[in-house]
Amino acid sequence: MYILDKFFNPKSIAIIGASRDPEKIGHVLLNNLLTSKYSGKIYPVNPNAKLIKSLRCYPSIEEANKANKEPIDLVVISIPTEPSIKATESCGKLKIKNVLSITAGFSEIGNHDAEKRLKQIINKYKMNFIGPNCLGIIDAFSKLDLIFLPEIRLKRPERGGISFICQSGAIGSATLDLLSSQGLGFSKFITYGNATTINETHLLEYLGNDKNTDVICMYIEGVREGRRFIDIAKRVSLKKPIIALKGGLTESGAHATLSHTGSLAGSAEVYKGAFKQAKVIRAETLHDLYDFAKILEKSPKPKGRRVQVITNGGGFGILCVDGIDKNNLKTNMPSVATQNILKKKLPRECIVHNPIDLTGGATAEQYDLALKHCLDDKNSDILLVVLLLQTPLLDLKVIDMIKKYNDKHQKPIVVIMTGGNFTETQKHRLESGGVPCYTYPSDATKSIGAFCDYYNV
Amino acid sequence: MYILDKFFNPKSIAIIGASRDPEKIGHVLLNNLLTSKYSGKIYPVNPNAKLIKSLRCYPSIEEANKANKEPIDLVVISIPTEPSIKATESCGKLKIKNVLSITAGFSEIGNHDAEKRLKQIINKYKMNFIGPNCLGIIDAFSKLDLIFLPEIRLKRPERGGISFICQSGAIGSATLDLLSSQGLGFSKFITYGNATTINETHLLEYLGNDKNTDVICMYIEGVREGRRFIDIAKRVSLKKPIIALKGGLTESGAHATLSHTGSLAGSAEVYKGAFKQAKVIRAETLHDLYDFAKILEKSPKPKGRRVQVITNGGGFGILCVDGIDKNNLKTNMPSVATQNILKKKLPRECIVHNPIDLTGGATAEQYDLALKHCLDDKNSDILLVVLLLQTPLLDLKVIDMIKKYNDKHQKPIVVIMTGGNFTETQKHRLESGGVPCYTYPSDATKSIGAFCDYYNV
Repeated sequence: MYILDKFFNPKSIAIIGASRDPEKIGHVLLNNLLTSKYSGKIYPVNPNAKLIKSLRCYPSIEEANKANKEPIDLVVISIPTEPSIKATESCGKLKIKNVLSITAGFSEIGNHDAEKRLKQIINKYKMNFIGPNCLGIIDAFSKLDLIFLPEIRLKRPERGGISFICQSGAIGSATLDLLSSQGLGFSKFITYGNATTINETHLLEYLGNDKNTDVICMYIEGVREGRRFIDIAKRVSLKKPIIALKGGLTESGAHATLSHTGSLAGSAEVYKGAFKQAKVIRAETLHDLYDFAKILEKSPKPKGRRVQVITNGGGFGILCVDGIDKNNLKTNMPSVATQNILKKKLPRECIVHNPIDLTGGATAEQYDLALKHCLDDKNSDILLVVLLLQTPLLDLKVIDMIKKYNDKHQKPIVVIMTGGNFTETQKHRLESGGVPCYTYPSDATKSIGAFCDYYNV
Repeated sequence: MYILDKFFNPKSIAIIGASRDPEKIGHVLLNNLLTSKYSGKIYPVNPNAKLIKSLRCYPSIEEANKANKEPIDLVVISIPTEPSIKATESCGKLKIKNVLSITAGFSEIGNHDAEKRLKQIINKYKMNFIGPNCLGIIDAFSKLDLIFLPEIRLKRPERGGISFICQSGAIGSATLDLLSSQGLGFSKFITYGNATTINETHLLEYLGNDKNTDVICMYIEGVREGRRFIDIAKRVSLKKPIIALKGGLTESGAHATLSHTGSLAGSAEVYKGAFKQAKVIRAETLHDLYDFAKILEKSPKPKGRRVQVITNGGGFGILCVDGIDKNNLKTNMPSVATQNILKKKLPRECIVHNPIDLTGGATAEQYDLALKHCLDDKNSDILLVVLLLQTPLLDLKVIDMIKKYNDKHQKPIVVIMTGGNFTETQKHRLESGGVPCYTYPSDATKSIGAFCDYYNV
């Protein structure tokens, strides 16, 4: 097992290839590290510069290491292929144990010889090596930002419980940008490129023990040590959910992975079987990956699969029920007591079945009433609340109300909000308050299904 | 066949129930009509007001009609149930032919008697009657806004080729809000509530002949005249695509439609069969409905099902290929000539297969090169371009470039852009320039599949 903690909590970092040129990756890396408020020591390494971003620059990793007095905790390499191999060897000689390599030009372009030589060095010096050909890593807790894309184009996440292991840098970065904009919080974000030594299984094991990680998301193209992956995943999934999207599940897709990360994709059936055995939740699309992560991060374990729908739009209620049926969830009726009290207190046009339809005239008070009684009702295990804010009578205090109920109660509350900017703003508020929110009934119900499956209810 | 044109291009409109109270539906309706810059005559009707919003108010529909000298083109009714029935009869007596009724309290709450009496009046006077219990209508071309939700909570759409027939007001309004915010354009938006006389089939027939409508979207819970619906849909779908989402397709969902619009939902198999027979494209989710509409509105007929992927993210390329496979599309290789020229002109790390992977270092010039040669390449029928803007080297001129190619070429171009605000802004630009854009490979490829199916290629 690799000890990976120094990648996320290093006391000292050297960047080989740090640059004064804002167009260079080595510049963006250093800049992001500085912006991220990483509090440890930073050693830019570049023989052609004295100062970069007001930091003293070292001509070689040897000089930098000497200045640090003890072996530098983490070295980031961002220089061309051949020099990067030499730099890795230099690190090994200096007893530097942890290297993150951004450098490309290895097996992903058919340069297997370079990758083989790199691997020999890594093994010889028993180093922990992430990459090469990766995008970098982020830890939102330790405030470490080591990815080489600028913040103006890629929004950084808030702290949260989701960690993401991603073989593809592009999927990682686009995801991070998309989800950070939607207000989702992350713990660790790790791309690992060619996985010359450290691969998805090592990272999975590490995150399994990481106290800041509640849910593990993975995008993988191939698994290198199938048997070990299943064993580790089995163990980790007892502690926290693992959701995985496998790229290259179709025949043509599998063929394409070969030229991307050189992964042998394996057949769809093998992967589906392995995931099932290891209790890995399979995402069919990127959608699923994020949608499932949200509810698994935010919501407490449900007692069963019975979903009570509360809506202010009849059509949405019906699409929810369709989704509930499709995902093997149940729509029991509210208890007679709940029905009676709601029928008495709600206006005549409201329908107290499942769904409870508060109709377009719904007010925050009516939602309050329905929520209160349904949360206490033993006939449901999960509440699915459709909240359409287009109707002017619905006061926005309904948002805080739902947040409060969600904080207090053990029955999971999931919310569907569909609309434009007005709606999106309120949805962010609700979501950052800990309530999983979805735009579409189909996504919400599919996610509730995966959520219940994970908890085996 | 009902003549429905006066609903969308009336020279005169009376609003029975117009109100000075900003909380009342009758106020919001009038206000929206004024804001929408409708240029015809407006007659507010309310016995208790002299002026509303600086317009002269009439004590009765009789007085309003007298002032108009000829029967008013369109009367909108927004008063309680029983008075609304009387008002409908008054309209009949005055030879007013077109009535839109917002009023609720009919069969949707079990008040079948009221609905029956309403229907008798409508039939007696041979009126065109939309509603009751509907949200209203919008025509983005004639600038007619007759829905009762305020613009601050529900963004109005730009002009476009999509028309939406929606039995559920909530689904209609949330959709309109969501898609208008995403920059999609609409032609007509019609909710029809209980469909006492005018139903989905009449509206479908009307939109089939509407020159401002290129694509028809429908949300339906039940079809009243099954045989006629199939006949009309068959005819219309020869001229333009019809995409339909059926609410209540599952057993529990079907049960729920009964209390919503009183629709007999019918079994899933019957609907699937009918849609197939009528060449109606079936949307499985709201997602599908909008996603399919976009490409069918914007893109020219493809010659076949061969999709060339161009990407700057390898993982995205693989997910695209997976989606292409799943949707029975094809990934042929580019021609040898294209491969040779691109291999010569692109940097070494680029992969010229299908996908063409320009890698994270992709520039606008490389996209230009790939696009130009693939558009002319006879080995593909559609281009699927993944454009990840997180990488700083990718100049934003790539957006205008794609727009220009899309304008000039007959080969459809579909774009996938995934990311936060920076990406979303550019995506809107591209989409309003006529290029269908998606966030996820799965959505893009499913939409391309539906698109090719419609054109039978």
